Amino acid sequence: MKLAIAPLLVALLGVPVLAAGSAETLRGTGDLGIAVERAQGSLQWLDTTNRISLGRIEGLGDLSHASAVFSRDERHAYVFGRDGGLTQVDMLAGRVVNRIIQSGNSIGGAISQDGRHIAAANYTPGGVKIFDARTLELVADIPTESKVIGLEDLPGNRFAFSLWDKGEIWIADISDDPRNPRLTKFTGIGTQPYDALISPDGRWYVAGLYGENGIAVLDMWHPEKGVKRALPDYGRGEEKLPVYKMPHLETWAMVGGKAFIPGVGRHEVVIVDVATWTQEGVIPVAGQPVFVMAQPDGRRLWVNFAFPHYDRVQVIDVPSQSVVQTLTPGKAVLHMEFTPRGENVWLSVRDANRLEVYDTATFRKLAELPAAAPSGIFFTPRAHRFGL
Amino acid sequence: MKLAIAPLLVALLGVPVLAAGSAETLRGTGDLGIAVERAQGSLQWLDTTNRISLGRIEGLGDLSHASAVFSRDERHAYVFGRDGGLTQVDMLAGRVVNRIIQSGNSIGGAISQDGRHIAAANYTPGGVKIFDARTLELVADIPTESKVIGLEDLPGNRFAFSLWDKGEIWIADISDDPRNPRLTKFTGIGTQPYDALISPDGRWYVAGLYGENGIAVLDMWHPEKGVKRALPDYGRGEEKLPVYKMPHLETWAMVGGKAFIPGVGRHEVVIVDVATWTQEGVIPVAGQPVFVMAQPDGRRLWVNFAFPHYDRVQVIDVPSQSVVQTLTPGKAVLHMEFTPRGENVWLSVRDANRLEVYDTATFRKLAELPAAAPSGIFFTPRAHRFGL
Repeated sequence: MKLAIAPLLVALLGVPVLAAGSAETLRGTGDLGIAVERAQGSLQWLDTTNRISLGRIEGLGDLSHASAVFSRDERHAYVFGRDGGLTQVDMLAGRVVNRIIQSGNSIGGAISQDGRHIAAANYTPGGVKIFDARTLELVADIPTESKVIGLEDLPGNRFAFSLWDKGEIWIADISDDPRNPRLTKFTGIGTQPYDALISPDGRWYVAGLYGENGIAVLDMWHPEKGVKRALPDYGRGEEKLPVYKMPHLETWAMVGGKAFIPGVGRHEVVIVDVATWTQEGVIPVAGQPVFVMAQPDGRRLWVNFAFPHYDRVQVIDVPSQSVVQTLTPGKAVLHMEFTPRGENVWLSVRDANRLEVYDTATFRKLAELPAAAPSGIFFTPRAHRFGL
Repeated sequence: MKLAIAPLLVALLGVPVLAAGSAETLRGTGDLGIAVERAQGSLQWLDTTNRISLGRIEGLGDLSHASAVFSRDERHAYVFGRDGGLTQVDMLAGRVVNRIIQSGNSIGGAISQDGRHIAAANYTPGGVKIFDARTLELVADIPTESKVIGLEDLPGNRFAFSLWDKGEIWIADISDDPRNPRLTKFTGIGTQPYDALISPDGRWYVAGLYGENGIAVLDMWHPEKGVKRALPDYGRGEEKLPVYKMPHLETWAMVGGKAFIPGVGRHEVVIVDVATWTQEGVIPVAGQPVFVMAQPDGRRLWVNFAFPHYDRVQVIDVPSQSVVQTLTPGKAVLHMEFTPRGENVWLSVRDANRLEVYDTATFRKLAELPAAAPSGIFFTPRAHRFGL
């Protein structure tokens, strides 16, 4: 099925496409991507210009909850697996070029601003490891005596991360000497931080708290002011429902000085003023939101949902703060990724074993691609952004 | 000199680099760029990871006031020359692959959101031409009976541009049928618009006016409200000095709801609230600003200047709104380009015949590269942004 699509597209578009699984081929790397096939430890290798798969990349181990970052030249992907694997994938060759098991259990990682180092956040044992991005040689090991979550890259070749067991936020600065990171520690930031984000401008590091209500906010422009607690009612309220899935923070939408965030256990998107980190209002939606993602132009938000509403996607118009479209791609929409200027969005529809591509202006479906229980989708232009 | 740098870097960094002017080579395209050598119609072909030139690309005609955009896969650059030339450059091969003279005199252009079409803004004869991005085949010709300036790409596969002779702003929508653009015209927007910008989110189209004070602002989220005039005192005042160079608009910095714009004929950067487009204050600087550019993290602004202060660059700290650094690279600093996550900035120092690369955190100079009277510098990640 997948192989049959490429020749058809050649005929339709009159453009050359790569043969699936071809050897290294001369081409630009700005329109490539991967989709995680977590059950079988493989990736779909994607071309966002022709909206096709270029093949399958295998041998990545346990990819449940996997995430990826990209080298600054967009040549390589670095995939962080739940099994502690760190896998370097050649986006031109479509194959694994290096793979290490760097810990017993990992929750993700980041790449430094200058692209020279990869940092991995680990559960078992806790801590952060820093690797050379070319060779995956271990450069530094930062023990934390805690599970580490919410590892994000910051301007100035720094990383921020949170300690689940200790309720702390640490900053590791590798700008002077990557082998000896300078650490800054913020203690007492709240109980059980479970995920975090850095705002697209690299200014706000925000950790969600599992053990209590509210969030922890660190202004990287004023770290001397310390971590502030905000949104004291976030995650609480008389209408609270069972929480089917803790929402991710990494893709909280930030548009025009507002953050649009998933209501925990509630059928709403919460609107937050970023200057003060106070709640301004809510937008009712069809279920418990998981990701709230802004189109690159900030004009619309795309929202997916936890069980039992995980078959649909809703689109919110930002100026009117109202739902303008409901799509029902099928069970279960796990992830969404926009092309960098936002003309298309790609969805992973896990139980339908496919990726779907939509025109964001018309909501028209442009393509379906077979994929085995796909989850995360990651495009190479993430190389050029903070916190992705 | 240039050729001698590459082996040295290999030795220092232990990484392979391309031979200058090599044939097509397998590599990622996310860390490539060009610098315009306008006097001799050539480009320096740049690698921002190793901070080297990969060679010179020749045969581009008159490149005074030239600008460039990139294909969505970052494989090709499209260079708009003052002589009406539109040149397609292969960023992997380092050579011209297609070149047309599309008009008698051109002021720049843009690439559509989906990357399929190139639009060029022309002086002689006036008008906008739309080309197929692969073949440079003419797809549509939009006569305007006016010089066209400030051509920008908008979300929704649209272009906006301004008519110098008529005082109008037009939008051309090619989303349905590129061969028959749908036009929307705004008349009476002001006298002699001379340049324009689109905000990084694709929302605000702003034209500077040469024939009168003030600016013209169109909110693309609310085009039905029409074009508003704003900043009525912009360009006026008792301390006005001779204007040595009309400041560009395309790189007005927009950070956290504020625009930082060059004071016309004055030694100051003007702070504007974007929600209301009113002036909030000014920051004194060392000369008449030409470009005011925000680092990708928005934390600092980098400013260059018109004659006679064109030998220096000043850096403004955004939170304190004060100058924190003055660099004197030499005569004449014509352009600045940040690496996409902002760890470095590249400067063109025309009369010194070189490019300089600085660490944005420490202001340390990292590299000098010879270049013949360089002007504009353009890196491939522009492919993924609006209005660049």
